[in-house]
Amino acid sequence: MRRFQVASEDEIKNAETTDVYFTRTKEILEKEGLSDLTVTAEITTGSLPRNWEWGILAGVEEAAHLLEGVPIDVHCFPEGTLFHSSDVEGVREPVMVLEGRYLDFCLYETPLLGLLCQASGITTMAARVRKAAGEKTLLSFGIRRAHMPKKVPRIALVDTYYDEKTESILAAEALGKDLFGVRLDTPSSRRGNFAEIIREVRWELDTRGYNYVKIFVSGGLNEQTVAELSLAGPDGFGVGTSVSNAPSIDFALDIVEADGKPVAKRGKLGGRKIVWRCDECLREKITGLTVDAPKCPNCGGPMGKLLAPLLSKGRLSKTLPSPDQIREKALGQLKRLSTP
Amino acid sequence: MRRFQVASEDEIKNAETTDVYFTRTKEILEKEGLSDLTVTAEITTGSLPRNWEWGILAGVEEAAHLLEGVPIDVHCFPEGTLFHSSDVEGVREPVMVLEGRYLDFCLYETPLLGLLCQASGITTMAARVRKAAGEKTLLSFGIRRAHMPKKVPRIALVDTYYDEKTESILAAEALGKDLFGVRLDTPSSRRGNFAEIIREVRWELDTRGYNYVKIFVSGGLNEQTVAELSLAGPDGFGVGTSVSNAPSIDFALDIVEADGKPVAKRGKLGGRKIVWRCDECLREKITGLTVDAPKCPNCGGPMGKLLAPLLSKGRLSKTLPSPDQIREKALGQLKRLSTP
Amino acid sequence: MRRFQVASEDEIKNAETTDVYFTRTKEILEKEGLSDLTVTAEITTGSLPRNWEWGILAGVEEAAHLLEGVPIDVHCFPEGTLFHSSDVEGVREPVMVLEGRYLDFCLYETPLLGLLCQASGITTMAARVRKAAGEKTLLSFGIRRAHMPKKVPRIALVDTYYDEKTESILAAEALGKDLFGVRLDTPSSRRGNFAEIIREVRWELDTRGYNYVKIFVSGGLNEQTVAELSLAGPDGFGVGTSVSNAPSIDFALDIVEADGKPVAKRGKLGGRKIVWRCDECLREKITGLTVDAPKCPNCGGPMGKLLAPLLSKGRLSKTLPSPDQIREKALGQLKRLSTP
Amino acid sequence: MRRFQVASEDEIKNAETTDVYFTRTKEILEKEGLSDLTVTAEITTGSLPRNWEWGILAGVEEAAHLLEGVPIDVHCFPEGTLFHSSDVEGVREPVMVLEGRYLDFCLYETPLLGLLCQASGITTMAARVRKAAGEKTLLSFGIRRAHMPKKVPRIALVDTYYDEKTESILAAEALGKDLFGVRLDTPSSRRGNFAEIIREVRWELDTRGYNYVKIFVSGGLNEQTVAELSLAGPDGFGVGTSVSNAPSIDFALDIVEADGKPVAKRGKLGGRKIVWRCDECLREKITGLTVDAPKCPNCGGPMGKLLAPLLSKGRLSKTLPSPDQIREKALGQLKRLSTP
Amino acid sequence: MRRFQVASEDEIKNAETTDVYFTRTKEILEKEGLSDLTVTAEITTGSLPRNWEWGILAGVEEAAHLLEGVPIDVHCFPEGTLFHSSDVEGVREPVMVLEGRYLDFCLYETPLLGLLCQASGITTMAARVRKAAGEKTLLSFGIRRAHMPKKVPRIALVDTYYDEKTESILAAEALGKDLFGVRLDTPSSRRGNFAEIIREVRWELDTRGYNYVKIFVSGGLNEQTVAELSLAGPDGFGVGTSVSNAPSIDFALDIVEADGKPVAKRGKLGGRKIVWRCDECLREKITGLTVDAPKCPNCGGPMGKLLAPLLSKGRLSKTLPSPDQIREKALGQLKRLSTP
Amino acid sequence: MRRFQVASEDEIKNAETTDVYFTRTKEILEKEGLSDLTVTAEITTGSLPRNWEWGILAGVEEAAHLLEGVPIDVHCFPEGTLFHSSDVEGVREPVMVLEGRYLDFCLYETPLLGLLCQASGITTMAARVRKAAGEKTLLSFGIRRAHMPKKVPRIALVDTYYDEKTESILAAEALGKDLFGVRLDTPSSRRGNFAEIIREVRWELDTRGYNYVKIFVSGGLNEQTVAELSLAGPDGFGVGTSVSNAPSIDFALDIVEADGKPVAKRGKLGGRKIVWRCDECLREKITGLTVDAPKCPNCGGPMGKLLAPLLSKGRLSKTLPSPDQIREKALGQLKRLSTP
Repeated sequence: MRRFQVASEDEIKNAETTDVYFTRTKEILEKEGLSDLTVTAEITTGSLPRNWEWGILAGVEEAAHLLEGVPIDVHCFPEGTLFHSSDVEGVREPVMVLEGRYLDFCLYETPLLGLLCQASGITTMAARVRKAAGEKTLLSFGIRRAHMPKKVPRIALVDTYYDEKTESILAAEALGKDLFGVRLDTPSSRRGNFAEIIREVRWELDTRGYNYVKIFVSGGLNEQTVAELSLAGPDGFGVGTSVSNAPSIDFALDIVEADGKPVAKRGKLGGRKIVWRCDECLREKITGLTVDAPKCPNCGGPMGKLLAPLLSKGRLSKTLPSPDQIREKALGQLKRLSTP
Repeated sequence: MRRFQVASEDEIKNAETTDVYFTRTKEILEKEGLSDLTVTAEITTGSLPRNWEWGILAGVEEAAHLLEGVPIDVHCFPEGTLFHSSDVEGVREPVMVLEGRYLDFCLYETPLLGLLCQASGITTMAARVRKAAGEKTLLSFGIRRAHMPKKVPRIALVDTYYDEKTESILAAEALGKDLFGVRLDTPSSRRGNFAEIIREVRWELDTRGYNYVKIFVSGGLNEQTVAELSLAGPDGFGVGTSVSNAPSIDFALDIVEADGKPVAKRGKLGGRKIVWRCDECLREKITGLTVDAPKCPNCGGPMGKLLAPLLSKGRLSKTLPSPDQIREKALGQLKRLSTP
Repeated sequence: MRRFQVASEDEIKNAETTDVYFTRTKEILEKEGLSDLTVTAEITTGSLPRNWEWGILAGVEEAAHLLEGVPIDVHCFPEGTLFHSSDVEGVREPVMVLEGRYLDFCLYETPLLGLLCQASGITTMAARVRKAAGEKTLLSFGIRRAHMPKKVPRIALVDTYYDEKTESILAAEALGKDLFGVRLDTPSSRRGNFAEIIREVRWELDTRGYNYVKIFVSGGLNEQTVAELSLAGPDGFGVGTSVSNAPSIDFALDIVEADGKPVAKRGKLGGRKIVWRCDECLREKITGLTVDAPKCPNCGGPMGKLLAPLLSKGRLSKTLPSPDQIREKALGQLKRLSTP
Repeated sequence: MRRFQVASEDEIKNAETTDVYFTRTKEILEKEGLSDLTVTAEITTGSLPRNWEWGILAGVEEAAHLLEGVPIDVHCFPEGTLFHSSDVEGVREPVMVLEGRYLDFCLYETPLLGLLCQASGITTMAARVRKAAGEKTLLSFGIRRAHMPKKVPRIALVDTYYDEKTESILAAEALGKDLFGVRLDTPSSRRGNFAEIIREVRWELDTRGYNYVKIFVSGGLNEQTVAELSLAGPDGFGVGTSVSNAPSIDFALDIVEADGKPVAKRGKLGGRKIVWRCDECLREKITGLTVDAPKCPNCGGPMGKLLAPLLSKGRLSKTLPSPDQIREKALGQLKRLSTP
Repeated sequence: MRRFQVASEDEIKNAETTDVYFTRTKEILEKEGLSDLTVTAEITTGSLPRNWEWGILAGVEEAAHLLEGVPIDVHCFPEGTLFHSSDVEGVREPVMVLEGRYLDFCLYETPLLGLLCQASGITTMAARVRKAAGEKTLLSFGIRRAHMPKKVPRIALVDTYYDEKTESILAAEALGKDLFGVRLDTPSSRRGNFAEIIREVRWELDTRGYNYVKIFVSGGLNEQTVAELSLAGPDGFGVGTSVSNAPSIDFALDIVEADGKPVAKRGKLGGRKIVWRCDECLREKITGLTVDAPKCPNCGGPMGKLLAPLLSKGRLSKTLPSPDQIREKALGQLKRLSTP
Repeated sequence: MRRFQVASEDEIKNAETTDVYFTRTKEILEKEGLSDLTVTAEITTGSLPRNWEWGILAGVEEAAHLLEGVPIDVHCFPEGTLFHSSDVEGVREPVMVLEGRYLDFCLYETPLLGLLCQASGITTMAARVRKAAGEKTLLSFGIRRAHMPKKVPRIALVDTYYDEKTESILAAEALGKDLFGVRLDTPSSRRGNFAEIIREVRWELDTRGYNYVKIFVSGGLNEQTVAELSLAGPDGFGVGTSVSNAPSIDFALDIVEADGKPVAKRGKLGGRKIVWRCDECLREKITGLTVDAPKCPNCGGPMGKLLAPLLSKGRLSKTLPSPDQIREKALGQLKRLSTP
């Protein structure tokens, strides 16, 4: 008996989490003699949740593990790439392209999209909060948090029974130099003007010589509130459910070519495409295959191809980047963005 | 190596998915000689997502599996109960109450809330769509769909290349009585007035004598669009991401009594409570322990206790209801609601 | 030298606070041989501040003191009368009518309007807050407050350093039966959900057996917040600047008849008028002098005249009512109003 | 018997379409001995429909035909002039000025205004759509359309039964180089995102090598939608009812001078005026007759007079411009405008 | 040479005002051997202008004159019928149905729609103003006004130089019993509160005994302002451009059957239809031909057919109603409407 | 008996207008042996009424008269200082600081705040209207107006019976060069477009050669309407109730230090402070006492201290400025402001 509604690693890998729709698709392909139909399929999204202007692609490593061994070719934006739903002219961006026998990979559509949609949603939200927090400390108060420094600094929670200001002063007087910081997790019913509370705590600590005590704020924070509260002078933020409950990005997979011919489904653009990126402007332009590299429509500079080989006949095309490399890539792009 | 970012059943059961915060809490309890501190803890939510007026509690069975064997008492609303975030006077409703040594269960806070939050979110959204659809057929197009009838009726997808109307007529002329229904999954760029398209398809089928062909609609539907499109006369709806991506319900666990004394944390109500429910009006009233059963503030009728024993000293208090029983309970309550 | 910008009683009585405009008017009347011009003048308002539907007339006693001895006739709504800016058909209501030689009273226009405008504004606002508070206690925290009961009950201010809840419990534990009530004057930066704070204080006091401790709320309250917070169960309200800074009612004085002939200034209605009032519906209807008593346009019942003699040839027509009588009159009308 | 509610040319010329109001005016003038009263009358408009910033004057030629032979002088802005309702300081612009015996022309007020109001409304709307369309092709689909090129290029209507994309590809495959263009007249119920549909059609045609096929869009287009859809890359627009049902411009005629003296009717400015225009900035300034030419309040450059002689004692002052000349004049002004 | 841009009666009758599109359609029909193609065509509108709920059909008599002698059958709602754009279920209402050889009538589409669109727009607006005015007098101040009573009552225009109130009193004093009424055509710059001005004029006239003088209001009035000002007590309204510039109703003609088979153009419903009307509720329901008379979906009462024969083989099916009969029919329906 | 509800100068000076709250405070201080408690108290405001960005401090002279002889030290912004509720970082600005035995001055809190709140409100509003009027004449039509020039120019009121335009021409024709100006006090019911009326009066006067006649506008004007109407070209404005009924500024007094130690009341910042001002940018920055003079956060320039000694041990620290000096100070600051 299954105690919890979770799939095991093997169930996922064996495509046992797929929709029955695709199981039947596979049966039909076989029955109709279409086993050898080769197709090109794209993964795109029509729009990003909450009117986000950009997203960060994630879940690529898991996708690679899922499709490893399936005899198809896969191209993909690198993990951690900042992308848009459409290019400068409104053409949807394919973040991943699969080529091969449809029979071979049709069963993986459900788990593949599941991996990309959820991971990209959470990663994008985390990136937006990071952009909002600027250089300030950001602590994950969510569930998937993994690594914490060994020696934990002493941070007093100062919002449980008294006013934040009173509790902060009491904590500073009691712990002295041992107090690294105070954490304000003020319940919403007491949050008339949270920035004002932060300012008061800072002022009273400073007035009494506790300038070294840091202030951390938490409690239902999101990218907007992080940006707003930053002006009141806290030293860091704890962010939880706004990231762990981030909206999924609604990727979909569509066949755009069958047996080498473009397919013109309503609402989709047929044929294989190239995604060009200007690394300066972080803007994209999409063309058909036979087109020369365009100039960036924004700055006129050169554009490079963004889709890179991930799997070739089911084998990893190259070593996957480490988490640190992915993080560095993502942060580098964030810095080049003028606005969140 | 872990291929996918999922926890196994055993990892969940062994509380290996808990936040490091609680691991440290446990260490502190032991170090400070508080191992025998007994507490009462409540699970409540401050407000429901998207201004929902009510929710449906789910995840209780999984919660029971998680806590089975932990030497504590647990009371809970039965799985499938329609609940509100607060009672008629604004007092938060505890949907679950745990009593025992805090040391024994503090590690389970993270996985316990995770199970309740996500399951209740999805179940609530599904119930809302069901309420909006009235008696019409509702098909799950999401990922967790499991059981489908053996003999699958023939439903033609009529929105791929031509207009829905033309494709519907072609399908009806080709398949005759074999055509059970047509499915309209019109892409958003072609959805100027979806109700009008449905009405036209219905009219043209009827005009040609295909009154028996059913019309199913799908594509990004949610409770609002299901309710609106119902008036145009379709026979059923396919609903996917609006349910599978439903927002989690933001439950939190708080200690309200320690060693028999009420605890008065800011933003929470201390002490143990009784939740009274009027089964006619589906309204609740919360009181302290020593109060007599109140009358329903709405209809004046009798009220009963809603929190029922789930676990006693870590053992299941009674057999858990079957999925069919839970479904029947939930639907019964939906029928008694006047508005969605 | 004048230390403060206030006029003395004698300066007011001698019309030394009038606008220079009227001093010149008087000179012109005399120079142009219009000393004996007799006029009828009305005091009306085009609209009430803040879209109030009704007002309470005040300042009549002071007006009588001002005009006493001036050889004119004055009719007036009684002090404490609930009035509207216009009758059911949009005709402005004259709350006071003066008849006599214009020379005799033109200098009093400025101080007369000053007395009525400010007193009626404050009284109206006080009445609106009273209506919003229903039967609950209402304490004046403004500046003009005069009489307080001799034996002052013990009310603890519980919002200075700690959280309201913590301070309330501490006060109750310290003072026991000596504690009459607690006062919540929560600063706005801590007022995320003031109703919630009130509910929590009530709950914690009750849980510990302090049901007898009353809760008083204060701090920038007005008629809206008093009405909203009432639902959270406080026992009384302290109201200050919203009443003491109430907007003045913008009364104006206009001549409507000169030497017995109606005067038709743009924007005003000429001729003497009768104001009829239905005491059941609290609605008015205005007619010319020669009209029979109309029926109430709302309920069809009888209507009586609302303008009563105040001064006859400069002598008080009857004894002025006491503050208690005025209060009773005003409260009686408030009770008959269905909505605030 | 009259089969249709239209007036003949002779009925219009003989002022038989005038309001009875003016027939009676004429009788009174004669009866009261005012036959020789000479007046100056202006035609102005208080504001343009739909908050338009500017209009294009039309109907001048028809007005000249109407008044030809009437012994009066008429000055007028030239046909096709871009004008505003008021000058830079808010003074209404007289687009036409009539001088002579009021008896001679009072009967023509109704038909004269009728000609100017309707023609100027339609012409202004056409000009606004032209401004919105930039250099793209604009086809009139309205009723008054007259001349079409002899050799009609082949344009396929691709929205009747199938999807626009499918029908476009079918048309291109069937007609090859004979297909000049496709026309998308998508019904509103299928217009979820018309720009997206245009983009898809363009993409699929290009992908298959039909880059030469042009795309024309039509169906309820107005200046806003033309401007918006332009970005999606169509080659031209068909515009119908938005021009043929354009709102009339509400011109009115007012006497501003009688027997040489200014007349000061409420809401109008008396006396004869000069309208000065800066041809660079397309801004106007209005003065009385005796003022020197002002400088442009915008650029400081010279201003010229805009009212030119149209009729002198009932004779045409000069040859009227041809339709091509009028068109060229209007387009020249449009180009100088920065925004629509 | 054509002096004015109007078509003569004969040009209209000979279809010389048709779009070139239809001239080419006729050529193609002949060239392609489709001269004998018989079709059924409907005239419907997708929605009424300005969110009107209902319209009044007009132009039927002119349409009959246009099509008389053309060998086709025509069914139509009677002139003056109150109709909706769609029936209770959202199906578009055909107000006119033409049957015959398409070759015979295709040239008449342009003038036919022109007649119905404009006449129905003006008539509908006039009916809406009438509904808003209730039983009060309504005078047409537009251009097409024809008949006026012989003996014209004396109505003074009182808004030219002085204030309306002053001028009204002056006129009443000067003319006495000869003054039938005063007309307030207050310019918009003086219209701060037009209702207030009307009330003042009424009051001053009454105060001076001129109760018999009527008040007429005019100047840019429409259905909203007529309804609002009614409450201030005027005796009548003059309405001009809001009716003469009424928006056209956007009727379109579509083929729904060709050679006896339904035609399924996107956005239209194929096949011949019956329009059922409940004369009590003024609601319609549309069905195919073979359906029995339905019950009114609102009141359950009987429904009758609304489309009546107009022409049979080009001959008038019966005598056309007189203007008085049409007016009576329209007014009778207006009375049965609860809201405008 | 008191005829009017006003306090005499002596009553104010003797603190007989104080709230009973403070009388009891004084008793408690004495009873609890706190007679010698020395405190520092600040007067600040949390926000300005109506979202004003800045205020002008007034009432300082009266405050000095009130506190003269009370043995405390008082620092204050100079009368007429432009101030903000908070500095650039959101710290509330203390406009006045009192130091001494609390027993000595607690009784004065009520009258002190009363003097500052009302005077600063009226002065701020007057300054805002002045800023809006630019260099145009501004006449006070309120009640406290005192000095008028001896020789009064002749200004005709032109809005009583006729239209403003007609009355203006009549006045100019009657008085010729003796007419200094006309005053338009148009009642609101005639104010459709007040700017248009002003423009018309100006035009007609100019057309007839009365260019020298000035136009003054009045009637319910406030800073917004003054700014708007300025564009229509009047020469001056009369402003009354918008200034005399200006909202009070809600100053409050709080103890920030007791016996030399900072006091940390919720919502307030403890300890003594310095207010630094950049005289160029009119921006402030607040620091604790021991901080060096900061640079202006806006322009980087030097900042000076804004709090100046007012009373030292109850004696005036220096001669108070004259009304003209205060006026000059205020106007000088207004000129440096870019926007109102």
